[in-house]
Amino acid sequence: MNPELLLSRIRIVLCRPSHPGNIGAAARAMKTMGLSDLHLVAPKCAFPDPEAEARATGAVDVLKGAKIHDTLPGALAGSILAVALSARRRDLGPPPGFPREAAWQLLAEAAHGPVALVFGNESVGLSNDEILQCQSAVSIPTNPDFSSLNLGAAVQVLCYELRLAAYSDTLQPLADPRVTPFSSPLATHDEIEGLHAHLKSVMTETGFLNPEQPGRLLPKLRRLFGRARLERDEINILRGILSATQNRTGHGRKA
Amino acid sequence: MNPELLLSRIRIVLCRPSHPGNIGAAARAMKTMGLSDLHLVAPKCAFPDPEAEARATGAVDVLKGAKIHDTLPGALAGSILAVALSARRRDLGPPPGFPREAAWQLLAEAAHGPVALVFGNESVGLSNDEILQCQSAVSIPTNPDFSSLNLGAAVQVLCYELRLAAYSDTLQPLADPRVTPFSSPLATHDEIEGLHAHLKSVMTETGFLNPEQPGRLLPKLRRLFGRARLERDEINILRGILSATQNRTGHGRKA
Repeated sequence: MNPELLLSRIRIVLCRPSHPGNIGAAARAMKTMGLSDLHLVAPKCAFPDPEAEARATGAVDVLKGAKIHDTLPGALAGSILAVALSARRRDLGPPPGFPREAAWQLLAEAAHGPVALVFGNESVGLSNDEILQCQSAVSIPTNPDFSSLNLGAAVQVLCYELRLAAYSDTLQPLADPRVTPFSSPLATHDEIEGLHAHLKSVMTETGFLNPEQPGRLLPKLRRLFGRARLERDEINILRGILSATQNRTGHGRKA
Repeated sequence: MNPELLLSRIRIVLCRPSHPGNIGAAARAMKTMGLSDLHLVAPKCAFPDPEAEARATGAVDVLKGAKIHDTLPGALAGSILAVALSARRRDLGPPPGFPREAAWQLLAEAAHGPVALVFGNESVGLSNDEILQCQSAVSIPTNPDFSSLNLGAAVQVLCYELRLAAYSDTLQPLADPRVTPFSSPLATHDEIEGLHAHLKSVMTETGFLNPEQPGRLLPKLRRLFGRARLERDEINILRGILSATQNRTGHGRKA
């Protein structure tokens, strides 16, 4: 199924959010990853709110499209799977999995209908009652000494994993390392040998290399430039620099 | 190597951040994932700042420990790898990879010394000059219609991937091309900058480079040597060659 369609079927549900800025940040995080269906359960601020809009920046459309509910069941109506974000192991409720696993589960189910990812209040998280309304749980691995992600940042991490999973079949390496406006064809073997010969003659002429006792100087330069996979244009630059030093001193000139 | 130690070697560098709240959010994002080494380049606010501290919440220690620099080279001093966050394909600079790949690269290199992950200004990102000081780049896959992650959220995503990679049971050292009888430690940022400055002065002295009309000569050399990931020993060889040409001609000598 089309990744955009799958992502559009994933609801982000924020339960009792305290800070309007975090709601705006969540809207922005969602939109950067291609999600748009925001649900708020009993938010502790009225809408519209200027701080929420400021933090949403270009995602004010997601914020304005948010559906507001009194309780979690309203936000989950019609969904076929609800996954709770849980910062810790609970006595109750499903054991939390990793974000990557949760993303795959949500996408797999989204092929069949709307699904929801449920976030709790900034301070107290989800209540046991809310957790028990979800069929699955997810926890973001954190530093055990400081596990408190900002709400918007947690939404960002989960939406990022959702986008990666949704586009996993089609995600290609972003670029070929050599395809830039700078790039020129790779140098041929003889062009590379020409550079090494040129280097050797400059090093010899200047006394940097003693041909009788060369040590490992030449193989070290071969190793360096071999690793770099030189392009033709780069050979021309390097040889241009060498020639310029020779022209200046005259020692490379033909008599 | 111990995952905590590896994570402690990863610098988060924020270039010219505009909003103190985002700096606080970045500190919080770092600490939730076990990172602590925050560097700020020319922040547009004075410290301490109440909004930064409010957004940092329990990570005020990371915020207060932040090192402040005038320019990016100061923040990169001593580091052996710098990875730039880039929202888009650039004409210059290395092609961006995925966060997961960048996390593995940073951790693999962190076994050998300090590494840096570099974030740009909220509005304008990193300058071309800053990008060219990094050997690698990373881009977070986004909705093409709205790709603007909040700075703190971007730091959260990258630090999350770093923690996942650091604690992955399958964390294997990447094939290390430097384990040869030749290999020496990777050059630090300041050693690499020293090479570029030396190259520039030789090219200028010999007339190969016109500083008034440099064209793309300098960025092309940065691209080449950035790709090669220079070792200290190689820097010494290259600078030895340059010095030898200067001694021969005398144009690099002090009067």
